[in-house]
Amino acid sequence: MDFAYDDRTRELMARLTDFLDEHVYPAEPALEEQIENADEPWAWTRLPVVKELQAEARRRGLWNLFLPGEHGAGLTNLQYAPLAELTGRAWRLGPASLNCAAPDTGNMEVLAMFATPEQKKRWLAPLLDGSIRSAFAMTEPAVASSDATTIETRIEADGDAYVITGRKWWITGAMNPDAELLIVMGKTDPTAERHRQQSMVIVPRSAPGVRVLRGMSVFGYDDRDHGGHAEIVFDGARVPRANLILGEGDGFAIAQARLGPGRIHHCMRSIGVAERALDLMCARAGERVAFGRRLDEQGVVREWIAESRIRIEQLRLLVLRTAWTMDRLGNKAAHADIQAIKAATPTTVEWILDKAIQVHGAAGLSQDTVLAGAFASIRTLRLADGPDEVHRNALARTEVRTAAERRAKGGGPLELRS
Amino acid sequence: MDFAYDDRTRELMARLTDFLDEHVYPAEPALEEQIENADEPWAWTRLPVVKELQAEARRRGLWNLFLPGEHGAGLTNLQYAPLAELTGRAWRLGPASLNCAAPDTGNMEVLAMFATPEQKKRWLAPLLDGSIRSAFAMTEPAVASSDATTIETRIEADGDAYVITGRKWWITGAMNPDAELLIVMGKTDPTAERHRQQSMVIVPRSAPGVRVLRGMSVFGYDDRDHGGHAEIVFDGARVPRANLILGEGDGFAIAQARLGPGRIHHCMRSIGVAERALDLMCARAGERVAFGRRLDEQGVVREWIAESRIRIEQLRLLVLRTAWTMDRLGNKAAHADIQAIKAATPTTVEWILDKAIQVHGAAGLSQDTVLAGAFASIRTLRLADGPDEVHRNALARTEVRTAAERRAKGGGPLELRS
Amino acid sequence: MDFAYDDRTRELMARLTDFLDEHVYPAEPALEEQIENADEPWAWTRLPVVKELQAEARRRGLWNLFLPGEHGAGLTNLQYAPLAELTGRAWRLGPASLNCAAPDTGNMEVLAMFATPEQKKRWLAPLLDGSIRSAFAMTEPAVASSDATTIETRIEADGDAYVITGRKWWITGAMNPDAELLIVMGKTDPTAERHRQQSMVIVPRSAPGVRVLRGMSVFGYDDRDHGGHAEIVFDGARVPRANLILGEGDGFAIAQARLGPGRIHHCMRSIGVAERALDLMCARAGERVAFGRRLDEQGVVREWIAESRIRIEQLRLLVLRTAWTMDRLGNKAAHADIQAIKAATPTTVEWILDKAIQVHGAAGLSQDTVLAGAFASIRTLRLADGPDEVHRNALARTEVRTAAERRAKGGGPLELRS
Amino acid sequence: MDFAYDDRTRELMARLTDFLDEHVYPAEPALEEQIENADEPWAWTRLPVVKELQAEARRRGLWNLFLPGEHGAGLTNLQYAPLAELTGRAWRLGPASLNCAAPDTGNMEVLAMFATPEQKKRWLAPLLDGSIRSAFAMTEPAVASSDATTIETRIEADGDAYVITGRKWWITGAMNPDAELLIVMGKTDPTAERHRQQSMVIVPRSAPGVRVLRGMSVFGYDDRDHGGHAEIVFDGARVPRANLILGEGDGFAIAQARLGPGRIHHCMRSIGVAERALDLMCARAGERVAFGRRLDEQGVVREWIAESRIRIEQLRLLVLRTAWTMDRLGNKAAHADIQAIKAATPTTVEWILDKAIQVHGAAGLSQDTVLAGAFASIRTLRLADGPDEVHRNALARTEVRTAAERRAKGGGPLELRS
Repeated sequence: MDFAYDDRTRELMARLTDFLDEHVYPAEPALEEQIENADEPWAWTRLPVVKELQAEARRRGLWNLFLPGEHGAGLTNLQYAPLAELTGRAWRLGPASLNCAAPDTGNMEVLAMFATPEQKKRWLAPLLDGSIRSAFAMTEPAVASSDATTIETRIEADGDAYVITGRKWWITGAMNPDAELLIVMGKTDPTAERHRQQSMVIVPRSAPGVRVLRGMSVFGYDDRDHGGHAEIVFDGARVPRANLILGEGDGFAIAQARLGPGRIHHCMRSIGVAERALDLMCARAGERVAFGRRLDEQGVVREWIAESRIRIEQLRLLVLRTAWTMDRLGNKAAHADIQAIKAATPTTVEWILDKAIQVHGAAGLSQDTVLAGAFASIRTLRLADGPDEVHRNALARTEVRTAAERRAKGGGPLELRS
Repeated sequence: MDFAYDDRTRELMARLTDFLDEHVYPAEPALEEQIENADEPWAWTRLPVVKELQAEARRRGLWNLFLPGEHGAGLTNLQYAPLAELTGRAWRLGPASLNCAAPDTGNMEVLAMFATPEQKKRWLAPLLDGSIRSAFAMTEPAVASSDATTIETRIEADGDAYVITGRKWWITGAMNPDAELLIVMGKTDPTAERHRQQSMVIVPRSAPGVRVLRGMSVFGYDDRDHGGHAEIVFDGARVPRANLILGEGDGFAIAQARLGPGRIHHCMRSIGVAERALDLMCARAGERVAFGRRLDEQGVVREWIAESRIRIEQLRLLVLRTAWTMDRLGNKAAHADIQAIKAATPTTVEWILDKAIQVHGAAGLSQDTVLAGAFASIRTLRLADGPDEVHRNALARTEVRTAAERRAKGGGPLELRS
Repeated sequence: MDFAYDDRTRELMARLTDFLDEHVYPAEPALEEQIENADEPWAWTRLPVVKELQAEARRRGLWNLFLPGEHGAGLTNLQYAPLAELTGRAWRLGPASLNCAAPDTGNMEVLAMFATPEQKKRWLAPLLDGSIRSAFAMTEPAVASSDATTIETRIEADGDAYVITGRKWWITGAMNPDAELLIVMGKTDPTAERHRQQSMVIVPRSAPGVRVLRGMSVFGYDDRDHGGHAEIVFDGARVPRANLILGEGDGFAIAQARLGPGRIHHCMRSIGVAERALDLMCARAGERVAFGRRLDEQGVVREWIAESRIRIEQLRLLVLRTAWTMDRLGNKAAHADIQAIKAATPTTVEWILDKAIQVHGAAGLSQDTVLAGAFASIRTLRLADGPDEVHRNALARTEVRTAAERRAKGGGPLELRS
Repeated sequence: MDFAYDDRTRELMARLTDFLDEHVYPAEPALEEQIENADEPWAWTRLPVVKELQAEARRRGLWNLFLPGEHGAGLTNLQYAPLAELTGRAWRLGPASLNCAAPDTGNMEVLAMFATPEQKKRWLAPLLDGSIRSAFAMTEPAVASSDATTIETRIEADGDAYVITGRKWWITGAMNPDAELLIVMGKTDPTAERHRQQSMVIVPRSAPGVRVLRGMSVFGYDDRDHGGHAEIVFDGARVPRANLILGEGDGFAIAQARLGPGRIHHCMRSIGVAERALDLMCARAGERVAFGRRLDEQGVVREWIAESRIRIEQLRLLVLRTAWTMDRLGNKAAHADIQAIKAATPTTVEWILDKAIQVHGAAGLSQDTVLAGAFASIRTLRLADGPDEVHRNALARTEVRTAAERRAKGGGPLELRS
């Protein structure tokens, strides 16, 4: 057992920290300003600040770090974890600067794993290059998004085309006109076995029959700095059959493959958010005086700071252990761990953000700090990919089964007298 | 001891419920639309939907219910409490429709109690009439707003005028150009005894030297439906000496007089928010199915619903008891109770809103329900008039002193063996 | 609406406070000593300290206060509530001194309401007189005690007798040989309609076939100061048919009638426990110094004290409102409120006790304070009469149904856009 | 980074698991019985069940695993951690069987590190052999035990002897007459520098002037299965000067050296307690039916099970990381981590025990399961070695200082606009 990061990881952490300190944090005010004055409100990809940071990251060899294998930096999950955490500290510009922002990361992984050579050339290459963006269209307003078998969108074969009909929402990134492709999940065969009904197709955002209705807001934020969250109607949208990813009926399996890394990336970045919140909490508590004493000398604030540190350390270790398990035994073996971090992370980070806000007073709720925006983002994670309650429920089922197996083997001690 | 509302209260509750059901709830979508398309973004007072509701409320005898005494409806705090709660259920339009919205209510109370006849004629009359709005300028960015003695804004006599110099923020309502007057708290004599340094003056928003810099946002909301929260610089603003409220050095006492009713009104309305959130939670849980069962048949959701009801009932009773104490013994005697409800209310209501959001899924965070906006508003109450931690701290001091007095009288049992 | 206690209540409160201060608190050390040295370990009824306090309480007109109607003091629930709370402050001797201790109170109520004149003469009279004690045998080890329909004990008619067969546990008070009667719940007709299968019979503890197996302990306490908690086997125990209470099949209804007041009495007394814990917390925090400052000047302890006060006030009001509803509209109408206080009380009081213990350091866990024992007692209330989770679940069902009815009447506002 | 236990650890874990399954769990009922019937109530060391298990453990090479270096098994903290956890699952007999129970472990470590050859021969050898027991006398009733500088016990040189005068309590193990030695902390020079006033001496329990007054109980438990918790008066007790450990003034430093490993051992074992509680929770939930469904199919119980698993995993990783840091960088470098686990562990494990109890119903509070006893033990850890609040406070101080240093280096991003 060894809790030290390996050499390559440490080298990249140092390089990334420099980049963040020298370029990303200082650029945050510019982002705000450029967004407000943008001609095309949702096209964050065209903002000069983004372009410049991406160029600099590339120059420094900090590009596509998220992607294992030949197409990316080739890091393991365990190596990428602390890097993702660092980008999370600067969540508004960090991940995007490195071409490591959701949902593009997940989409690139799907394409890298499952796409045909033609699909890779047409879609993966420009995504890896950062010249286009993408979105992942799975959630629907009418059904519980945590239960993929309830999806109502239809993908119907018609000659050499697929025709897509349905309504999706919370399609993150899709308000951005540069999000040229949507990976759409729908049913090709509603009569098949439960997990073989779904398929995924690549749908150009500009295809006829695709109507982007509106952006969903989160608390009062429209999140235009990463392309918003679109509600989209697919009104008989047609795409060539060659746009199918893998085969018909493979949609559920692809979604599962996508979700594991997607979730752990969210968790890693969220820990970075928590670290920054704790930093800000300490900074503010160290300069603000109330009733004659600095806040960082007051017992209640001290409790918050200590608890924040205690919770972050535990959470990070669980995320790292999950990454390690994914690397060694595969995503499936890490399933329960992924559920655990999916449920534990937003609750923990939200708690810390809440306390950081409280220490800042009303400023903490306003545009003058990054805290309220972070709170909104983290809050969505308690619902994204299904509410935490669903994940805890499933995790308990696993625990109960495992415990029963142990008892069946004669292991467990009987406690109640007969 | 009797827990029934009196007849007048019940009659008004019925009348108000009808008004809300028939006019206010149905008008909520129109509000959203008119705000988006308004020429003057902050002037909610000019929106047709507001004008019409105000006219209707007045017609139905539901005007200025908050105000005791000759100028208003003459209700006690205890009588007004359940009415304020009802308006809280429809918080975006309800209070404004009845001319019962903060911060105008507190300002009208101050003027009704302390203003000269000339001041009343010039400012109170149009406020009671709903033809102008007002704001209350106390909080400052540079000091802990929970500690009124730290205020830095200066109010200096100069001939027959006062000259005001300082910076204020979170001045709710002041982005609205119709908020014609600001009641400004500042120091006339920084060398006087701690609680005699402050004074209050009426400053027209249009006075030279008053610069409204920007609106503060709460999470992503600018709260333009009640005039936003302004940051304002007073750059040597001049007003006639006749604009002083009461005497020099009376500012702190006026603020204290204002805060008691102001806080309890917030609490009353917040309970209405909680009731509506619980309603929405039940409605959604009754129609949404996940994993084969309606949400309202699932154990975790049931716990949330039950806990919400249990907490609301307890909280409402404490607020009502506080109102009763204020009516019978005055605001000062109710001081500890007011601190208790100030601290208990936002925590409780926030918890319920969080659960209501969770039951709604991502919709609960979006513009499609009122929940996220309510969460943002309630969250500010944990900071408004000082963070809850300050109030709990003060409440504990009272408790400790009371307990010690009881022990000194020989009352308390000694528990530790000698 | 009026939050003041009426005159009779206030007069009794004053009288009871004097009695507690002058006699009961000072007698607590004697209780401990006499229990340790008792010949008959479970017969707390024979301890001199108990006898003397009972005589004194009777002399002062503080006897059987719990019992409404002709047999008792004739108080309403609302009048009794603050008196029960006061006895709860001195929970080890207070209730017993006044003949107001569970489970005798509930049994006396059952007999006063439902017993025949002969039964009253034989059993109720000596109970009211305090010369014998009783127990209530309902809970069984093999089934979920929260679900009365699952009871397995059989009560079978055989000639002019009933024969009782079954196993009960957690029969509070029944280790005391002076607990001469057991009111036993069992099934006379397992084929009848679900709630008509059960009956109740009076079984003398000395009847043949009654075997008291052992006392159950709670944390390490055997609770001999109120007769422990017995496990009892009924091995064909025979009693005359005249021992049936009311009719065959009435057992469930009697249990329901018994539980309402029983639960609210527990809640009232528990609030007294909380008040005393808060007193002790303040006293200790006022004398203990750590790291240079008194504990009551430290922020975290202040938070605990304030929160304790805030929670107690809310809880007490809900209990009082419940008592008021029971008095005016009957126990059935107060059903949801009784569930609410049943679930809210132990959680709240346990939290306060935990903090009081923490302020006392290890002494708080030991025999040197009353806190650890109180914690154990209150903890059982989260399970007694069924776990709180069952009550919250049922309460939620009521809330959901009520909310649906309101919506059906056209009341509820629709929140989601169509 | 590697999360796998090393081979030696895994081999020992397997061997220890076999021992626990085959011998220790099955012996638990015998322990209970033998304790009740023991002639000498506090001498658990003389119980046959203990003797036999110790012999068997020794035979299996599972003896003194806790002790690094030549005198013990030579394991690192990281290697010992999962073994301590396993013994914690069977906390009543497991640690004692392996000669790995507190407070002897800490005392043996002190003697192994600091004792003279003569002291080692006289005291350490029989302790390592298990033929005598020991206690550690530090806590005093009159002062805050979390602040070692406040100790009042005096150790005064008088000729060739030290004379000890003072009162100690919560001296775990010292009710056992076989606890032949007490390591006593007192002040030799109250005028010296704060942390050089204290010394430690070995005091035979049988020395004249040592009066063992009584056993302290925890909730209702006297904990005689590990020698209780004694209150002891040192009334001019005399011991030879040769009984001093290290030098005069070294007491504080020795205490610090002792506390680090002592705390982490407690944490490790506590995690074992949590694992067993979760096992029992699952077992009970899998067999108990309420309202028509097994408890492990009900949402609320599922939440508890999942949360328990999530919290245990995080906590264990933090404890392991702490052990790793202690091994690599020493106890001092791990100071903040030790504080973190000291504060996090009891809270987490207590929460899990509470839920396990709730799932068991009243049985969970009684002598029929191990849960209530475990709750009592874990609850004491929130106070042992100073309340958790003190440790969190100190941890926050470290965090604040570290954050300020980071900012001073120009690292931290400024968040508030100027």
